[in-house]
This record gives sequence, C-alpha cells and structure tokens, in this order.
Amino acid sequence: MKWGWVFLGVFLSLGTLSWGETGLEIPEYDGKDRVHDLTAKNYKSVMKKYDVMVIYYHKNVDGNRSAMKQFQIEELALELAAQVLDDLDDEDIGFGLVDEKKDSAVAKKLGLDEVESIYIFADNEIIEYDGELASDTLVEFLYDVIEDPVENIDNERELKGFHNMDEVIKLVGYFKSEKSPHFIEYDDAAEEFHPFVKFYATFNPKIAKKLKLKMNEVDFYEPFMEEPVTIPGKPYIEAELVDFIEEHDRPTLRKLEPHSMYEIWEDDIDGEHIVAFAEEDDPDGFEFLEILKEVARENTDNPNLSIIWIDPDNFPLLVPYWEKTFHIDLSSPQIGVVDVEDVSLSCVQVNSLCGEGIHWQNKILEINIQTQDCFAFFLFLFFSNDLRS
Amino acid sequence: MKWGWVFLGVFLSLGTLSWGETGLEIPEYDGKDRVHDLTAKNYKSVMKKYDVMVIYYHKNVDGNRSAMKQFQIEELALELAAQVLDDLDDEDIGFGLVDEKKDSAVAKKLGLDEVESIYIFADNEIIEYDGELASDTLVEFLYDVIEDPVENIDNERELKGFHNMDEVIKLVGYFKSEKSPHFIEYDDAAEEFHPFVKFYATFNPKIAKKLKLKMNEVDFYEPFMEEPVTIPGKPYIEAELVDFIEEHDRPTLRKLEPHSMYEIWEDDIDGEHIVAFAEEDDPDGFEFLEILKEVARENTDNPNLSIIWIDPDNFPLLVPYWEKTFHIDLSSPQIGVVDVEDVSLSCVQVNSLCGEGIHWQNKILEINIQTQDCFAFFLFLFFSNDLRS
Repeated sequence: MKWGWVFLGVFLSLGTLSWGETGLEIPEYDGKDRVHDLTAKNYKSVMKKYDVMVIYYHKNVDGNRSAMKQFQIEELALELAAQVLDDLDDEDIGFGLVDEKKDSAVAKKLGLDEVESIYIFADNEIIEYDGELASDTLVEFLYDVIEDPVENIDNERELKGFHNMDEVIKLVGYFKSEKSPHFIEYDDAAEEFHPFVKFYATFNPKIAKKLKLKMNEVDFYEPFMEEPVTIPGKPYIEAELVDFIEEHDRPTLRKLEPHSMYEIWEDDIDGEHIVAFAEEDDPDGFEFLEILKEVARENTDNPNLSIIWIDPDNFPLLVPYWEKTFHIDLSSPQIGVVDVEDVSLSCVQVNSLCGEGIHWQNKILEINIQTQDCFAFFLFLFFSNDLRS
Repeated sequence: MKWGWVFLGVFLSLGTLSWGETGLEIPEYDGKDRVHDLTAKNYKSVMKKYDVMVIYYHKNVDGNRSAMKQFQIEELALELAAQVLDDLDDEDIGFGLVDEKKDSAVAKKLGLDEVESIYIFADNEIIEYDGELASDTLVEFLYDVIEDPVENIDNERELKGFHNMDEVIKLVGYFKSEKSPHFIEYDDAAEEFHPFVKFYATFNPKIAKKLKLKMNEVDFYEPFMEEPVTIPGKPYIEAELVDFIEEHDRPTLRKLEPHSMYEIWEDDIDGEHIVAFAEEDDPDGFEFLEILKEVARENTDNPNLSIIWIDPDNFPLLVPYWEKTFHIDLSSPQIGVVDVEDVSLSCVQVNSLCGEGIHWQNKILEINIQTQDCFAFFLFLFFSNDLRS
C-alpha cells in the first residue's frame, strides 16, 4: 500500500499553536471529589450551600460488577461537570448522589420518584433531566437552567433569531413593560416549563405588529410550524397559560436532542412513535426533512401522530448500533415505526432517495396510524422516475 | 430551603422506557484492545488490513505522570471510537498509535510530521485531523471521510439544503454527467480537500440555471457569503481548481468546530485573529452574528481580516475557563483579538447588547487592523439609545 502526501491548502501549519493548544484545552477531571453523597443527615445542610443543586438519583449497584463500572463512569461525568462549574462566577452549582436503596428516605423527602434520573433544584422548582449522562450535555443544559426564563425580542434581527429557533415549543407575548401584571403572570408560567419550553416577550409595538400580536396576547408555536396558535382569552393568568401548554404539549414533529433523549419516548401512543433519520447537513437528508415538516404541518391536528426526527450527526456513537440492530443504512434518510417496549423498529421504508433514476417526488398522501400490529403504520410514499422532466 | 414539585407537562412518564433505555444507550468501552501499537515491523501488515487507518502520532510520555494520565484518556477515546466503528458494515477502519520517540522510523516512513495530530490514511490520501480528541467528534469526522467527496444536487429541495450549508468553504459545478472528463477533474480536486471543503455538483440544467452556472463552470463559496466567485477559465483541469482553492482558503469569517478546533489558529497573521463569541440560539447572539456576517461580506476582499466565530454552546466545558481567563461574560456576545502565542485575548469589547436602554444599532463602520500592538484592532461599534422610536 502506498500513501502519498496531500496538500491540504486550508490547514497548513504556519506557526506555534499556543492559543489553540492551551486556550482550547478541553478540561479533564483533576481527581478532586466535588460530588456529595447525600444522606438523611447531611442533605439539608449541603443543599443550603448552593443556588442550584443537581442530584443524580441512581440505582443501587452493590454486588453487581458491571453496574458498578457503569456507575463509576457516570460519577466521573458528574465530577467533571462539577469541576468545570466550580469556576463559574455568578452561580454556585452543587452536585449530589442519592442511592435508591440506601437513601430512600432522602429520595422521599425530596420527591424523587424516577430512578436513573437527574433532578435539578433551582429557584424553588424541580427540573427533571432525562438526557445523556455526559458532562458537556449536562453542563450546557445547566447554563439554560440558570438563564432567565423569558427572553426579550427588541429588534428585527432578534426577531429573525426568534424565527430561526424552530426546533422547540416556544411562546411569544406582547406586553406593555416588564412591570405589567400580565407579563408577571407570563413570567411565572415560563418558570414552570423552563428550560424545556422557550418563552419570549416583546415590549416593542413595531415587533408586536410584525408578530401580529395585540397587547397582552400570547402566541404558541409548535416545533417546525410556521403559523402559531393564539392562546384564547387574553389577558391570561398563569394557570390559564399552564393549562394551554399542557394541552398542546405533544408536538407532531420533534427533534431528538441529547439533553432530553430518554424522556421524549415517554408520551408514546400504545407504545409507538414514528422515527425518521435524516442528516440535515446533507442534501438528501435536508430534502427529506423538508418533506417531513410539510407532512407535520398538514397533519398537525392529528393527535395520534408523533414523528421523532433523529439527526445521526448528533449521535455519532449510536449510528453503527442503529444500522446493525434495525438493518438500515443511515447514509440515506430512513423512516419507520418504533415499538418503545420491544426496542424494535418495524416497517422501515428504505428510501433510495438518491438511488439510480429514482427520485422522491415529494408526495406523502396519507398517514394512517393503526395501533395493533407491525403494519400499524402506512406511509404512502410516491416516487417518480423522473423529476427532471 | 423548601422545594415544591413542578408539573412539567411535556415530560410526564406514561409507561416503560425500553427503547429510550436500550435503543439509545450511548456505548461505553468494553475493555477489549483494538488500537494497534505500530512499529517498524508491523505497521505495513496492520495497515493492509484496513480500508481506512487512523493513526495518532503522540508524544512520548515515559516518566511523566501527568502526561501518562492524559495519554491514557486519549487512548480510551480512540479505543471507544474503534469499538463503535467495529460494527460498521461497509468499511474496515483501523486505529494505531505511533510514539514520537520509540517509533520515529515509522513516523518518517509515513510522513507524519506534527506530533499530537491524528493522521487518517484513506484512498491514497492522508488527512490531518487536528480536532478534539473525543470519540464522538472523531467518529463523526470519520463518517465524513468515508463519504463520497462530491455530493449531487438534483432538485430544488436539495438546492435549498446546499444553500443552508453556509458554515464551510463549498464549491458547486455543473457538468453533463458523472462520466464527463471535466467532472472527473473536479472529483479529483475534491479528493484533495475532502472532507474539509465541501464539493457539490449538479447534472440538472434547471438546477444549474438557478445557480447561474454554465456547463463545466464551478462556483466557489466562502463561508457565510451569499454571492459565490466563479472560478475563471472553464473548463478546468484538477491543478487549476486546486490552485484556486489554495489561493482562496482563508475565509473572512469562520466558525470554530470541534473537529478542527486546533488547526483553525494556524493561519494567523502576525499571531492574531479576531474572535467573536455568539450563541446562535439566543436572540442577542443571533443578532450579533448577523452583524458579523454583514461585516464579513462587506470586507471579504481584505486579506488581513480573519474573524473566528465561537458558539459557546458547542464548547460547554470551556465556557467557565474562557470567562475566567479573559474576564468576559459569555451570556452576552463578546468580541476581541486573540494573540495566538500568548494565550491572551486583548481589547475585548464588552457589549451590553441587552443592557438597560442600550441597543445595538447595527452599524459597524470601520474595521481596521494594525498588527503591532494590543490596540491592533479597532472595531467601531455604534450604539443608539433608542431603537424603538
């Protein structure tokens, strides 16, 4: 085998790299213990020390070697997160462990009920984190937790930024000022859903006009929907906003995100979700995603339809496992039905989106979910042999 | 301290979680050795076994405890990558280590010259990876390596996907077919820069018309630029394309990406880059980024201007370190000059973009780089007290 040098024009080395080397060194665990073992005796005093407390309510691993090893890795991820956040100026963030068996009294006192979950205690709220137990994903989530629950939109560029954020449930309201009692109700509602649902507000009449919002009115946007739903009955009290969001909290199309990758499956209907794999940074994947969005927009009133979009780029370590388990090739877009309980993916349509002479024609005529068997799900895909004509 | 339960409407648990638990379990290292120690004796036979060989050319760590610990962590990241890719069907990807001191003969034979870099041998090309040594980032990069170097654009949605990819250098050409000798020259040029520079082609006259491309013509897009530059002198041979790209390989505005986070600093001018921190998913950050893009577009002909955009969301573990070292608050956008050799960030403008009564008015009048001292860089930012009027 012969290897030749290739000139990589863009990446020639011209000098020293100190900033690149030192200024960008991803921190590694320094070995210092920062994560507390919470017990009935110490948990109150430990929690008092911090503005935000992150508690991992974990299985008891005594006597199980492989579970112990797994737990050690999880503990290290928490230690690294604690170490990194130790440097944070404005907030004291503490980390603790509660053992399902040894510390059941603490779990009961704190109201922890789902083992293997992380509970974040901040500002009199408890937020359940059911995402990847990796330091970077958890730390990024915690930055969102400590941010204000309502973001202000004050000019056209910020408005463009608001429209750009289309992957989450978001709300936007128009109020007279931050002191308005109606804004305060809105802000209180935001705290209930923070940071999973994004709340925006504007106090600027020009921006409100562009958003077609009347004073004290709030619009609700499902992920990937262009048109919002105006919440009826303005001005609202907190409970009315909370009720509306709870009634509309099952989006037709959602993106799987590392910070919530486990909880997204929990609102299945008879154990089923439609799953679509599409790489947004690839022309085929982008094309397929556009189609998915159209389908979701046209069928947003169907309460049984739940499509979960997975971008394989966000989960590189899972790609070979998914390909092997589900017999699919993730270099092209794929769609199928997941059976949540069986760890299966049924009825996969392998779409030769970029195959020879076969072109996706952009028509999905009917989505029909029956919930009893593997053929639960019929997605009629229409192909055409020539899009070019 | 009293904690109350909060009803998180979206995330109620309704059932079992097997798919979420098992189908989405991020793999952990199984302890099996897969990474080869390459020596003068074995390297040829080891490399013959694989389609793609990933070689970490590392420092010798004998006798240095902290370097040994660091190296162990790096080795584990490579082992996990090797384990995950072991499951890949279509390509055999091997991993090897070359010790700077013990294996200098191998390094010389293979042409490895930058210690602490990863060299990827694939299809008679050597690709230098100078990104984060983390399993997920490396594995994601390797998926790009094994993809075809030229992507086809065949319909309007794929064209939209092409325009959506604006963070990298990209080229697009219009050719008669894949068999056209001009396409073959283009494909050969693509291999030289793959996967850092993205190459697209269309064989569809309708798409070519939308791209304003004549037959056998290639357009070059700098990152974040709306208008391409047409490469003069069509039809081209490979060397002409390569020359053009090498002459235009220093974009005015670039995004720092984990897979190339160390090499981006290497083309500094007198050790300096402008660095801008902006969170795209935040209205303020989005706004600031829009302004940066405008500045870059207006000043794209200035060969001395290099702005590196860092989205803190992509580097959560580095945020507290940057905030502490450079005395900045990354919850708002920041801009400054980096001295590559000193690990310093000078002349930071702390922009109270969302401060009381101060509004970014969207005017950056002049960018002027002098390269001798800390006051190298003058960015005149004009604020207005009232954008609302």
